[in-house]
Parts: sequence; structure tokens; C-alpha cells
Amino acid sequence: MERSRETMVNRAEAERCMDEAGLDALLAVSPENTFYFSGVFIRTQVSIRERLAFVIVPRKGEETFLVCNIEESLARTQGWIPDVRTYVEFAESPIDALARVLKDRGLDAARLGIEARYLSLGYAEEMAQRLLQARRVPADRFFNRIRNIKTAAQVALLTDAFQRTEQAVKEAWAASKAGETEKIVAERMVQEMVRHGADGQRHMTLAAGENTNHPHARPSDRPLRRGDIVMTDCGAMFGGYGSDIARVGAVGTPSAAQRDAYRILYEVHRDTIARIRPGVTFAALYEHCREGFARRGYKLPNPHVGHNLSILGGHEEPLLHPYAQEPVRAGMLLCIEPSLQMAPDARMHFEDLVLVKEDGPQILCWWDARELEVIAG
Amino acid sequence: MERSRETMVNRAEAERCMDEAGLDALLAVSPENTFYFSGVFIRTQVSIRERLAFVIVPRKGEETFLVCNIEESLARTQGWIPDVRTYVEFAESPIDALARVLKDRGLDAARLGIEARYLSLGYAEEMAQRLLQARRVPADRFFNRIRNIKTAAQVALLTDAFQRTEQAVKEAWAASKAGETEKIVAERMVQEMVRHGADGQRHMTLAAGENTNHPHARPSDRPLRRGDIVMTDCGAMFGGYGSDIARVGAVGTPSAAQRDAYRILYEVHRDTIARIRPGVTFAALYEHCREGFARRGYKLPNPHVGHNLSILGGHEEPLLHPYAQEPVRAGMLLCIEPSLQMAPDARMHFEDLVLVKEDGPQILCWWDARELEVIAG
Repeated sequence: MERSRETMVNRAEAERCMDEAGLDALLAVSPENTFYFSGVFIRTQVSIRERLAFVIVPRKGEETFLVCNIEESLARTQGWIPDVRTYVEFAESPIDALARVLKDRGLDAARLGIEARYLSLGYAEEMAQRLLQARRVPADRFFNRIRNIKTAAQVALLTDAFQRTEQAVKEAWAASKAGETEKIVAERMVQEMVRHGADGQRHMTLAAGENTNHPHARPSDRPLRRGDIVMTDCGAMFGGYGSDIARVGAVGTPSAAQRDAYRILYEVHRDTIARIRPGVTFAALYEHCREGFARRGYKLPNPHVGHNLSILGGHEEPLLHPYAQEPVRAGMLLCIEPSLQMAPDARMHFEDLVLVKEDGPQILCWWDARELEVIAG
Repeated sequence: MERSRETMVNRAEAERCMDEAGLDALLAVSPENTFYFSGVFIRTQVSIRERLAFVIVPRKGEETFLVCNIEESLARTQGWIPDVRTYVEFAESPIDALARVLKDRGLDAARLGIEARYLSLGYAEEMAQRLLQARRVPADRFFNRIRNIKTAAQVALLTDAFQRTEQAVKEAWAASKAGETEKIVAERMVQEMVRHGADGQRHMTLAAGENTNHPHARPSDRPLRRGDIVMTDCGAMFGGYGSDIARVGAVGTPSAAQRDAYRILYEVHRDTIARIRPGVTFAALYEHCREGFARRGYKLPNPHVGHNLSILGGHEEPLLHPYAQEPVRAGMLLCIEPSLQMAPDARMHFEDLVLVKEDGPQILCWWDARELEVIAG
């Protein structure tokens, strides 16, 4: 599918947001928002935070993409914004460059929607001094609202990323056995992700036995032992688009208690997903999940049980937590991820991908094992 | 080597900085600074930015580590700070939790050194409202100053990370040949990094021919062709500690022009490193590198030619750029990374690791090929 402004940007929602908030332009600055509006994933936005990149999204008309000149060739060849401007780092502050470009675009006295939850205090103060005429309005929730409703092309790219990641985990686990360390199994998973087309891992938790208690433990030198529960929460990057899945296995034939706990998690997970539809609040989905566990004698250990999916593969607000009163909307992509603590040395965790359709949930990536997956004992 | 507050934190420099700025405490909040002061790398600080973690570093006395309860087990088991406090996300804002802990520590009316270049405007405003008695002072440069001087244990860990990464690149390139795509070669490099003990890649640029013009191109489906220059700028993570190297190769026997250009880059690179010693400014090193190229008829294309190394593997200020008048100090770890544009389709890039000693540079990781490395044509 062609990647263009038309297929990848929810421009109509952006304009609705600007109308609602009385904004003349949005000023995207975080990696997820510049990627969203430009089609260019600049990895140094994550690793070199001072090297700011901006997409100026005016209410009407074309976007302008302002990047450090080191990233110019990337910006010109990998995205869809023709108007690329640059600055030379250290010679000019990115905020001075922004002021220059806004003036050139006639937006130096505009009402600008900024990312107050991303832009640092230091840069924000510099912006206040350099853009005396402009009004800066926190617009984080509007950026989320725009990105929440995925385009068909985004759904296709992200589904593909999830399915490839899942296939990699399956194949790596099928090739693993008791006695190997967490680290060796995790290495095999990353190798399989890369073999399935990933640029590399996004995140990798792989834990056995008592290590499953750390939600984000690094793979260690602990060997997998017969009787262990093994869990992973992992993801990979595919040209900027990221995956985020969680899976559970047992080393050797699972015990009756492990099978029972797994079945309970499976049922609660499935029932939570079945409740997804436009209009239900995120808090209600969380509560439904909590109740499902409570009815079966378990306490939900998570402060949230899922999230909108960022195109970069991570969390995007709203999340499924007890205080999120926003309604689910058609077109959202949700990761649903409950946990079950069956014993001090055995936490189980699922994470699957669901598209919200007008008539309910459409599961896009789902661990199809009704029984606990087994790693050779 | 044991990882402890004593072996991993430059506490003396932290106290000097606080004395100099009249601060009662430092408030670490970025992934690099919380990792530095706690010994715990929390990967979700990068991927879930809203989930703040803080290390409160008082001028005298013990640190306090404040984390989201999801990360509590990690904080308690992987670091050296015994005083771990938690908050439940969504139920309580991390800033409310911070205010509560500062009060408990008697620091609610203190002068606090904050990371103004990291903390978002939104959180900073919340902090201003919740901590009415406290004075918040931007202290980014002090954090850099503390981290700039590496401990022996940090030097050992980072050198090991670089050397393993380099070995992985060597082995992957030796196994590669013309006709394979950039992506296949990059996959092999990542697999070798993981086989050499990495948790996964940190960053991966691998480009052939005309793609070498993008400083941070993602590996593509372009095949390596006989006559191409191939360059990589890549790194891997080893338990939080990261590497960052750049290497150049030729596909098949290099041409005379390629060999000449390589030799020039090699000489300028070597001469720049030879100038490193305490007291020389970063700007002077940049200028020396620029002059080295100019004398040989080349224009330096980089806005900077190196940087202090972050323990996470990336840039740490000061960088080697024309405006950095700070002096080099003994104990710094520097990545030196000049480029040479020999033709529109051939950019060469080196990046090597140097420790600043009282009497000059000590090279810790260095591509030992005096001739252009060859990938089988």
C-alpha cells in the first residue's frame, strides 16, 4: 500500500481538532508525532533528544518539515512532505530555526498547538522568548485523538509487524529447551524477529520462574527449568512501525495448577476483548477485566490492562485504566494485556492486538493456543 | 567488578557541583541520570515517557529512588539504592508522589537542581504548582559534568561493550558478500552482536553506495555491489551499557581512489585523536580535524566530529563542535567520529573510543585496519 499523506494522516481529524481548540497550526515535535505527520522515522530523535525536528501542520495548506541538516537526506527521500527546511546544529538553536520558519510561513503570531508533555522546559522557555507574538497552547490530547484513529494503511503495517513478531516467538520457542538460559532463548527470539524482516528488537522481556515477577526484567543467565512458567513481553521495529506482544509458556508438561491459571487468564482476556465496542469507556473495560479475575478468586495486579497502540509500537493514550473515562472509538487499535499472578514464582501475561470496528472487536493478532504453550522440558 | 554506589557514581563531583550552585539536592529524571545514580536501567523510561522515575540525590546522605510500582522489583533488585519509594500510575501523578517523598525527606523547601532539558513543560508546570516552597534550578550542565568523568568500572563496562560490538561487525562482514542486501548484512550484524552477549541493537545504520549519503539510513533492500563503499554506524546494549561505533568497507578490491580517500580519513582521524589531552577545548579538536581535511583538499561535512560517551551508549555533552569552548578533562570517554565525502555515492565514517588520561589519549576501541576492509566481491 502506498505511503502518502492521503493514506497515512488523519487530516480531517487534525482540522477538526484545530477548529475545536481555535488553533492555527499544530507543532509536532515528538518522535511519534513527527513520524506520523511526515512518514519519516528519525531514530536520533529518540537517542539524541536535543536534535529537535518539527512538523508544522497548518489548519489549511501544506506541512513544513524542519530537521537538523544531518537528517535532511532522510527527510527528503523517505517521507511525503516536499517542504523540508533545515538548521545546522550548534550553529543555530533549533528554536531559532523554528522561529525563522514560522515567520516565513506567516505563523509567527499564530495560535500554536504544542506538545507540552514532550517539549522540555528548557526549550519551551526558549520558545517563549523567541516567539513573543505566538500563543502556545498545550495540545497533547489533540495529537492523541488524531493518531488514535488509524488509517487502513497503518492497520495493515502494524498487523504485519505483530504477526511477524508472533511468528518469530513461536519459532524461537519451538527451538528452545530446558537448560538454556533466558538470555539464549531471548537471543533466538531476536534472531527470528530479524529473520522475519525486523530492523531489530523494540523491547525484550523474557523471564522464567521467579523472574516473571519483574514486569520488565532483562533476560538473565538463569536457565529455564522443567516446571517453570516462561513469559515474554517483546516487540520489534519494522521500518519505524513497532509491535508489542506478550506470551506465556511452560517448560515441560504444565502442572494442573498452571493449566488452570492459564485457562482463567485466557477466559478473562477473551471476555475483556469481547466487551470492546465504540462508546464503552476505557475504565469500564478495566473494571470488567478486574471483575472477571475477582469472580475467579484472583486479584488483578496491573494498574492498566491495555493501551491504544502507537505507530512506533508503544503506549498511546488513552490506556485501559480505572480513571480513563474517555470512550472507545471505532478505528482505534488496542493492545489488551492482562496479567495473572498464580504464585510468587509464576506470573502470566498476554498481549494481543484488536481493531475497534463499529460492531465490535476484530482481533488482528492473537496467541491461538487454548492450552499453555510448551517449551521442551 | 562490583557495581555499587562507590564504584559507579562520582559522588565527590556531585557534591562539588551542588556546593558550586548552592543546591540542596539533585533531582535526576532522565533515563541516563536515573541509571547513573541508581544502577537500574528502566527501559520503559525511554518507551513510556510519562512513567517518570526520580533519583533524589541530597548533598549529604543517602539517595531516594522513586519509581512507578510496576518497576519496583527491578529497582529493588538491580541497583544499589536501598530507599525505594513507589507510586501507582494513574491513581497518583508522579509529581504528587515526588512532592510527598521530598516532604518526607525534608526537601520540600529545598533548592533542587532539575533537568530542564529533559523534564517536559507539562510536568515542570505541575511541579511548580505542587512544590511551592522549593526552588527549581536548571542543572543540566552539572549532571553532564558529573557523568563526564567515568569511573574505572564504567570504563571497563563500556570498553567491553565496544569491543564486543566491533568483533560482531568484523565477523558479520567476513561472512557477507556482494549480492546480499543491506538488510541481510545488517541482520547478520545484529545476530553477531547478540551472540557476543548484547541484549539487542542500540542503533543500526548500514548503507552501501549512494545510501552512504544518509547519515542514519535504515538498512534497505539495495544489494551490495562490487565497487561499493559500505559504512555502518551501529551500537548494541549490554545490560544498559551501550556502544556506538562506525566502520567502513569496500565490496571487492577497492579502487585506488577509494584507498586514497580511506587513507586520508585514517590519517586525519588518527591525528585528531593524537591531539586529545586535558585542557584542549572541544572546539580546538574540531578545528584541528577540519584543518586536517582542508590541507588534503577535503571539506569536513560534519557539524560535530565526536562526543562524550553516555553510559547508555549515545551522545553526552560536550560534543566536539565549533562552538564548544569547554576543556577536555582527564577521565572523559570520547567517541571520535569524522566523515569523509569522497564522492556523491561514497561517504566514509569512523567512530572510535578514547579515554582521556593525564598524559594524553588512550585508545580503547579502534578499527585496526590500516587498509580499507574488504567484503567479498
